[in-house]
Amino acid sequence: MPDFLLEYIHTHRVRYRETDPMKIVYHTHYLDYFEVARTEALRSLGLPYKSLEDAGIIMPVVDLALNFRSPARYDDILEIRTVMTASPTITRVTFNYETRRKNETEILVTGHVTLCFIDVERNRPIRAPESFRNVLEKLFSAQKA
Amino acid sequence: MPDFLLEYIHTHRVRYRETDPMKIVYHTHYLDYFEVARTEALRSLGLPYKSLEDAGIIMPVVDLALNFRSPARYDDILEIRTVMTASPTITRVTFNYETRRKNETEILVTGHVTLCFIDVERNRPIRAPESFRNVLEKLFSAQKA
Amino acid sequence: MPDFLLEYIHTHRVRYRETDPMKIVYHTHYLDYFEVARTEALRSLGLPYKSLEDAGIIMPVVDLALNFRSPARYDDILEIRTVMTASPTITRVTFNYETRRKNETEILVTGHVTLCFIDVERNRPIRAPESFRNVLEKLFSAQKA
Amino acid sequence: MPDFLLEYIHTHRVRYRETDPMKIVYHTHYLDYFEVARTEALRSLGLPYKSLEDAGIIMPVVDLALNFRSPARYDDILEIRTVMTASPTITRVTFNYETRRKNETEILVTGHVTLCFIDVERNRPIRAPESFRNVLEKLFSAQKA
Repeated sequence: MPDFLLEYIHTHRVRYRETDPMKIVYHTHYLDYFEVARTEALRSLGLPYKSLEDAGIIMPVVDLALNFRSPARYDDILEIRTVMTASPTITRVTFNYETRRKNETEILVTGHVTLCFIDVERNRPIRAPESFRNVLEKLFSAQKA
Repeated sequence: MPDFLLEYIHTHRVRYRETDPMKIVYHTHYLDYFEVARTEALRSLGLPYKSLEDAGIIMPVVDLALNFRSPARYDDILEIRTVMTASPTITRVTFNYETRRKNETEILVTGHVTLCFIDVERNRPIRAPESFRNVLEKLFSAQKA
Repeated sequence: MPDFLLEYIHTHRVRYRETDPMKIVYHTHYLDYFEVARTEALRSLGLPYKSLEDAGIIMPVVDLALNFRSPARYDDILEIRTVMTASPTITRVTFNYETRRKNETEILVTGHVTLCFIDVERNRPIRAPESFRNVLEKLFSAQKA
Repeated sequence: MPDFLLEYIHTHRVRYRETDPMKIVYHTHYLDYFEVARTEALRSLGLPYKSLEDAGIIMPVVDLALNFRSPARYDDILEIRTVMTASPTITRVTFNYETRRKNETEILVTGHVTLCFIDVERNRPIRAPESFRNVLEKLFSAQKA
């Protein structure tokens, strides 16, 4: 099975505590925005992260990268476009991000975050649970059609 | 038994990410400094917080207050003076804090944080564990002598 | 003029990064929720904080207190009720907060944050700017009527 | 001129607020550790970041990447090895990081952060200031010798 695709737009207004003396968003906060974006993207699919944890599965971050093209500032309304892809066996999922100001085309910050699935009890990496895979497969079939 | 007393000085250099567009330390970060200060104060007594958690006891924050007199700035070296007191039955401990720049007398920020002891398994407030009480009683006896 | 009153409800879903190994919201994050709540409360009055800064006025925090009655957990939807009061001369404003889970009556966390107004150029405390006072006076008249 | 090289070891004890319900360090905090590591690395060269800002130069982050091999836990003492490199014209500097537990050889987290130099007044990227270049050149000559 090839890569799946989910697109989701998350909106965030920049908070005072997120800006630094350069009057721009301090670089680490984009990772906070991205956490919210992927949580809500999964929820929109009927896959709340909490239900994974309740089932004994956690999703630690494996790797990430961020590229800063232009700064965001206090009170800006940002739109974070999130595209989720998964490998055929779905042992990992990657969220790719693009950040823009609302109603603007310029890309400010891009990045990706890759997570894996860990069975807490055995402390071992596993494939995504069946419920998760079913949703992604349905999504992918719909995209092919 | 009356109140115990422990005094401890923690030193912290202000980090860039802790400052805001007013070029001063954003107010929440003092609580981070205070967490480190009380952790190290307890460790100096031979009471690492980790050993409490390993024994099934957690210490959630019950209440806190902060008073801001004068701002700290980027790269300032702060000294946080911590005084711990405990009620006679030691169901709660309170850490009182004073923040100054190193080698200066002016107090920048004061505050207190009060924590209680919770038995994780029963999810109920308890007295401090015996190991903890023993250390405090010895400390108090030494102060009276 | 007696105290003004503004009531505002801010909704926040608890994020993973805001929870600690006790699986509850780490205590400092309530101050982040409260910052957003007062920013949006002021915006709802037509008083975006950004317009103050653009006019050369900043509002540092003077003091704050938090009281923790019961913990919030990951993915909880919190409602933060904010009530703003101001002294007659409006040199300071205080925001009082109550935090509940959505559709529940139990209060989890209460607190207040008091801020003052500083003229950046002269680095001195001042009364709230006229635009700000006008809005509050209109609000207060409406409440008395 | 080829790449410069500075090696610096920064030590950090993992704080409670930095850990999440998985009882591991939440991924964004490594970027905080890395900020401290590079600040202290530059200070060790006689190049405090504050002196750059005082001279009207800021160093925003251009890009970064993190790779998570194994988790760090509460109260772990981490050693972050920092290697700085710079391009021949020194318009950008890159800090490469390796994180280990103290006295252990296993690498937990690696990453890099690249920063550029911006002249605040003209809001334009510039080469590193002369004072900065002089220190790096001296360092490089010493390494070649």
